[in-house]
Amino acid sequence: MKMVGYPTKKVKHENKGLYLGNKGMSFEDEINQSNEYYLVHDKAVIHKKPTPVTVVKTESFGKRRVRINEAYYVQPSTTDYNGIYRGKYIDFEAKQIASKVSFPFAFIHAHQVKHLKAIVAHGGIGFVLLRFSHYQETYLIDAKDLVEKYEDSNCKSLTYIWVKENGIFIPTGYRPLLDYLKAVDAMYFKGE
Amino acid sequence: MKMVGYPTKKVKHENKGLYLGNKGMSFEDEINQSNEYYLVHDKAVIHKKPTPVTVVKTESFGKRRVRINEAYYVQPSTTDYNGIYRGKYIDFEAKQIASKVSFPFAFIHAHQVKHLKAIVAHGGIGFVLLRFSHYQETYLIDAKDLVEKYEDSNCKSLTYIWVKENGIFIPTGYRPLLDYLKAVDAMYFKGE
Repeated sequence: MKMVGYPTKKVKHENKGLYLGNKGMSFEDEINQSNEYYLVHDKAVIHKKPTPVTVVKTESFGKRRVRINEAYYVQPSTTDYNGIYRGKYIDFEAKQIASKVSFPFAFIHAHQVKHLKAIVAHGGIGFVLLRFSHYQETYLIDAKDLVEKYEDSNCKSLTYIWVKENGIFIPTGYRPLLDYLKAVDAMYFKGE
Repeated sequence: MKMVGYPTKKVKHENKGLYLGNKGMSFEDEINQSNEYYLVHDKAVIHKKPTPVTVVKTESFGKRRVRINEAYYVQPSTTDYNGIYRGKYIDFEAKQIASKVSFPFAFIHAHQVKHLKAIVAHGGIGFVLLRFSHYQETYLIDAKDLVEKYEDSNCKSLTYIWVKENGIFIPTGYRPLLDYLKAVDAMYFKGE
């Protein structure tokens, strides 16, 4: 029963949320904790998709338990997060960058940009959450803006300055830690 | 490079779709192939979520490659499929049953029913695709109907007869193999 010593991600979040505030929390943890907050408070239903793996070898043990002995990570075909908010389909990717000056497009997969473009074409809300870790600042960038820049062959990145001007700043809070739905309201539900 | 001998799921679908028709295809394969058809024809963006696993041990090999040496399947916290269709958020679970008489509620997790209920409350479209493998028949059951039956403590299953009367039958086709969006049109976009 080796599993016992390895708490699931969920347990880890809860512990961190309770005892450590957001100290040592990853960007992903902050988003997941905020999504949990939104879910519990019936504000939105947004989940992170599991990381896809290709399973090669498994082994049965105990009573109907399966241990995976060989597997590999595979590239996700979509973005990491999706769900529903204010009756609308929501879809986004979250990226953290160490650079002080820009978010290079090499850090986002072409098929993820294509996916966000399709979401917008079908009437959904698509965006990217960008965390500049040096400044500890997070911004929401609308998918339409991202796609336009991405498809401009002269453009290889989003500069920090451009992001500050065109994105919506998301302050770090307490509950939820990262209230990105406020930025969604400001970007997509203006005056409603 | 052991990975080479193990084609990804995607490759398998393509081969099957091209050379074998739907012979030997699983219910899941049929849905995935239909989703691929919808995506390519710009009808909808609906994907299966990856099966969640908890990774315990990994090992690096080659150039920036990671092999997972120990992992376990964990219970999904949501349904298997979601996406966007006709501007609406779509969410569903697919279940195949061997029984000739009913779909027992023991085959669906309580948190999946709860998730579908939340989706409906937030204005999304939620349903279950039920395949009675004995009859080779597939039906769409609206989440509201499912939830009502599920929450009725006298009710432990959906009978085949009830499903035939309350669900929408989905014929097996060629392209896509399982045109379940027609059933979605009939159930949720009547007269539009």
